[in-house]
Amino acid sequence: MHCPDQPGIIAVITDFITTNRGNIIYLDQYVDRQNGIFYMRVEWELENFMIPAEKIDEYFNTLYARRYELTYRISFSTRRQRMAIFVSKMSHCLYDMLARHMAGEWDVDIPVIISNHPDLAIAGKQFGIPFEHIPVTRDNKEEMEKREFVILDRHKVDFIVLARYMQVLSEDFIRRYPNRIINIHHSFLPAFVGAKPYHQAYERGVKLIGATSHYVTADLDAGPIIEQDVARISHKDTIDELVKKGRDLEKIVLSRAVEKHIQRKILTYNNKTVVFS
Amino acid sequence: MHCPDQPGIIAVITDFITTNRGNIIYLDQYVDRQNGIFYMRVEWELENFMIPAEKIDEYFNTLYARRYELTYRISFSTRRQRMAIFVSKMSHCLYDMLARHMAGEWDVDIPVIISNHPDLAIAGKQFGIPFEHIPVTRDNKEEMEKREFVILDRHKVDFIVLARYMQVLSEDFIRRYPNRIINIHHSFLPAFVGAKPYHQAYERGVKLIGATSHYVTADLDAGPIIEQDVARISHKDTIDELVKKGRDLEKIVLSRAVEKHIQRKILTYNNKTVVFS
Amino acid sequence: MHCPDQPGIIAVITDFITTNRGNIIYLDQYVDRQNGIFYMRVEWELENFMIPAEKIDEYFNTLYARRYELTYRISFSTRRQRMAIFVSKMSHCLYDMLARHMAGEWDVDIPVIISNHPDLAIAGKQFGIPFEHIPVTRDNKEEMEKREFVILDRHKVDFIVLARYMQVLSEDFIRRYPNRIINIHHSFLPAFVGAKPYHQAYERGVKLIGATSHYVTADLDAGPIIEQDVARISHKDTIDELVKKGRDLEKIVLSRAVEKHIQRKILTYNNKTVVFS
Amino acid sequence: MHCPDQPGIIAVITDFITTNRGNIIYLDQYVDRQNGIFYMRVEWELENFMIPAEKIDEYFNTLYARRYELTYRISFSTRRQRMAIFVSKMSHCLYDMLARHMAGEWDVDIPVIISNHPDLAIAGKQFGIPFEHIPVTRDNKEEMEKREFVILDRHKVDFIVLARYMQVLSEDFIRRYPNRIINIHHSFLPAFVGAKPYHQAYERGVKLIGATSHYVTADLDAGPIIEQDVARISHKDTIDELVKKGRDLEKIVLSRAVEKHIQRKILTYNNKTVVFS
Repeated sequence: MHCPDQPGIIAVITDFITTNRGNIIYLDQYVDRQNGIFYMRVEWELENFMIPAEKIDEYFNTLYARRYELTYRISFSTRRQRMAIFVSKMSHCLYDMLARHMAGEWDVDIPVIISNHPDLAIAGKQFGIPFEHIPVTRDNKEEMEKREFVILDRHKVDFIVLARYMQVLSEDFIRRYPNRIINIHHSFLPAFVGAKPYHQAYERGVKLIGATSHYVTADLDAGPIIEQDVARISHKDTIDELVKKGRDLEKIVLSRAVEKHIQRKILTYNNKTVVFS
Repeated sequence: MHCPDQPGIIAVITDFITTNRGNIIYLDQYVDRQNGIFYMRVEWELENFMIPAEKIDEYFNTLYARRYELTYRISFSTRRQRMAIFVSKMSHCLYDMLARHMAGEWDVDIPVIISNHPDLAIAGKQFGIPFEHIPVTRDNKEEMEKREFVILDRHKVDFIVLARYMQVLSEDFIRRYPNRIINIHHSFLPAFVGAKPYHQAYERGVKLIGATSHYVTADLDAGPIIEQDVARISHKDTIDELVKKGRDLEKIVLSRAVEKHIQRKILTYNNKTVVFS
Repeated sequence: MHCPDQPGIIAVITDFITTNRGNIIYLDQYVDRQNGIFYMRVEWELENFMIPAEKIDEYFNTLYARRYELTYRISFSTRRQRMAIFVSKMSHCLYDMLARHMAGEWDVDIPVIISNHPDLAIAGKQFGIPFEHIPVTRDNKEEMEKREFVILDRHKVDFIVLARYMQVLSEDFIRRYPNRIINIHHSFLPAFVGAKPYHQAYERGVKLIGATSHYVTADLDAGPIIEQDVARISHKDTIDELVKKGRDLEKIVLSRAVEKHIQRKILTYNNKTVVFS
Repeated sequence: MHCPDQPGIIAVITDFITTNRGNIIYLDQYVDRQNGIFYMRVEWELENFMIPAEKIDEYFNTLYARRYELTYRISFSTRRQRMAIFVSKMSHCLYDMLARHMAGEWDVDIPVIISNHPDLAIAGKQFGIPFEHIPVTRDNKEEMEKREFVILDRHKVDFIVLARYMQVLSEDFIRRYPNRIINIHHSFLPAFVGAKPYHQAYERGVKLIGATSHYVTADLDAGPIIEQDVARISHKDTIDELVKKGRDLEKIVLSRAVEKHIQRKILTYNNKTVVFS
């Protein structure tokens, strides 16, 4: 939740939970004093909670939403989210996520992998996940995206991860999944926006390369940043070596972002993210 | 404050502040679920607070301390703390702190520098801070520490920073300043305890060197860790180069710890620290 | 190669290569002045080289080895090495390596996975690599290792990677693969040697956790360190969260070490490594 | 030195030194295969060297320069370089360098500090270094720079460090000191070029802030990068906190670059740097 900062707001909310016998197991809050906004994420057990699960939203809304100008979202950890992965030809981010999923690290379902190339069909087979080959080109994008929407709907997909997917989504596509498409860009944004960032980094002679995971918005590579990291390089590194060192960065930075999204610990506001720990 | 974790404890405390018209400007809390302990740091403005400053402790104690088994400390940001710096011959940590102090980065007074060697008297002169040369040796430690106590008392010192001070303090000394002596050890503790850690690191062939700032306890290099960091080295680095790379680590890691202490953001429990952000 | 440092040694070796029409494509050297030892790694193309491949060793030995007290090793990049992976139940390091192998990142064959538990047989199946279940216990180690030797010989294994393999190898086993068994230890060695390092780290209250890849020697967790890295943690992290954050460290630190070994860029001397870039 | 890559070039140069009884104490080389350029830095003792110091340049030039199209520079470590520091009002980078100088960490003379504000005159006084107040504004730049040239010449300054100097130098100024003016920019270049980079970083919502030291060229913030580093931030950090965290980055990143320059370990080519270790 977030709302205009105001005295006593934490007490009001925590009181609501504890007097109704909810056991708070996580609470993190933060006040953006520059803009006067209060952010909070709170998690509680429903076992003895006196308000039935399906009524919480109504009660919360009636009692607090208007009074405190609260924007909030209620999620139940019992509902497992469903995530689609989009790929092109590079496998490192995809395998990293499939391995985590297989090991039970993530509380998420992966009902489908979609790709504009057939190359990674093998990964779908290995991990038992349906693989759909949708050969998007510049000319057939509208038609192909329609086919993608059908697939995403059929699989009841909640959010999408672009795991080095080399196509730009249409504005229509992005509008359907606001703050629910996570991309990995292989540079330290906002440096090296657009194509071939490792080539750009090599040309500029930087001493660190980076990777950035962010929510996709209509502006290319300009959406809210979720996570970033860098690795040291030197004059000895060729572009091929930047690409290689970058792969490890990309997969870790993307997976950290996906994990936070699965845990519902990211709050977006003003094209920025609050990422709770 | 910290206390056994219990339902509603945040609401109780924040309610106490806001109903008495205190404006909360900082709140951070954390529950150690492994041990069932609740930690919180809260800062509020006293301008319109209905309880007079000198009565807050009494009220807080009466109303909550016993009831919730609370351990707490109340500090007023208007009271500037006084910090003594102990050094031997190496100047990098000392100058780093003096430069911060000079630039007004830290809300602290530095009334005295104490050293077992005369070498750094010049630094005292440059920055206008009294420098006391107390030539401690293994044999005269008790007597010399008595002289140090007199100096520390005279300057009303609240806490002490050992900025590469190469002497071990007596247990009596340590007992007088519980969680109020900050040391920098030039290794990633608990690796390389004791003397000559860079030599030890070189011998072992590690690929990273570290530095650790911690509160001093009777066990050598075993007190609660406040901050640590590392730097990458390679087989090419001689011991001299480890020492050189280590200096930058040491001064930054020590200054980060001192800053958190000045801000009263460190809470110590079970030989560990909770460092609020 | 390494030898006592002496004037002109680089000129001698590079001259040998270039006058015989070898095209040097990589050269890195380093002098350990503390101990007076010269280390060099040089790679050249054999296309126009005037000495036949099978005679290079003989010529090099005759002309230089005794004269300069040279210790050297000649490898041909055309010969692909064969690596066995040992695992127990945890899959993150295994999958990370299998994914790299699958993507063609590494110039290596993986003929077999060996495990003391059946759990990860599925990974072998997914990636088409024979999986051998050898249920080692404290009591049957000698017998089980004999079975492992047979398997390793049959698959002509050059080196072994212990990917979170939870058994200690016998001295006999280690002696058979000197500097050819790579282990990942889930701490910043030499801190937290032995069992349950994350528990030890939690107890000590460190602010960074680490991972260390090293060659296995008869001394537990004391072999030559190849690579290390750390990740920042805080008081908020439970042991479970240390384990989780540690997984990403472990797999990256292990894979970096394996890659350097595959590239034959690690030189071991005095229980330390020289890792060429 | 650098030259087109060619077989045997290392042997030729090292042979020249060793047959003339020079004792090589440092050698590092690197081949940029993408562009076919060979770079080398070699350091040797002159004690028994058969060519007199003042003749080395001539001999080297005659024997090798044209033949191998070599670009080279010969420096004598006995000649101490002279460095001027330019500052405005912020002291952290200045004090960091003065403290290193005072401790004898750097083999350099600092004959003068120049500033467009009088604020840091105190630092000159503390460390016994002449401080010149040259109140540059947009309108009087040409005239003021003339005064600076006089001062720089009088002090026989070899190179200049801009330690958070908030003025843009004229092209004429920059032309006089090619690859001899080191600047610190408080962002991870090429992100956030120009004014107020921390404000830009805050607006964009990045998760890391950076600092970049580079040689100054006529293009603002676009000169060859010498060193970069980053620090992690979070949504909790206000602009003031970015500024504060940035200070530690800036001073360390600048001092690393200055040190490499003093050691003559930076080679510039194609608007990029080769920084030898």
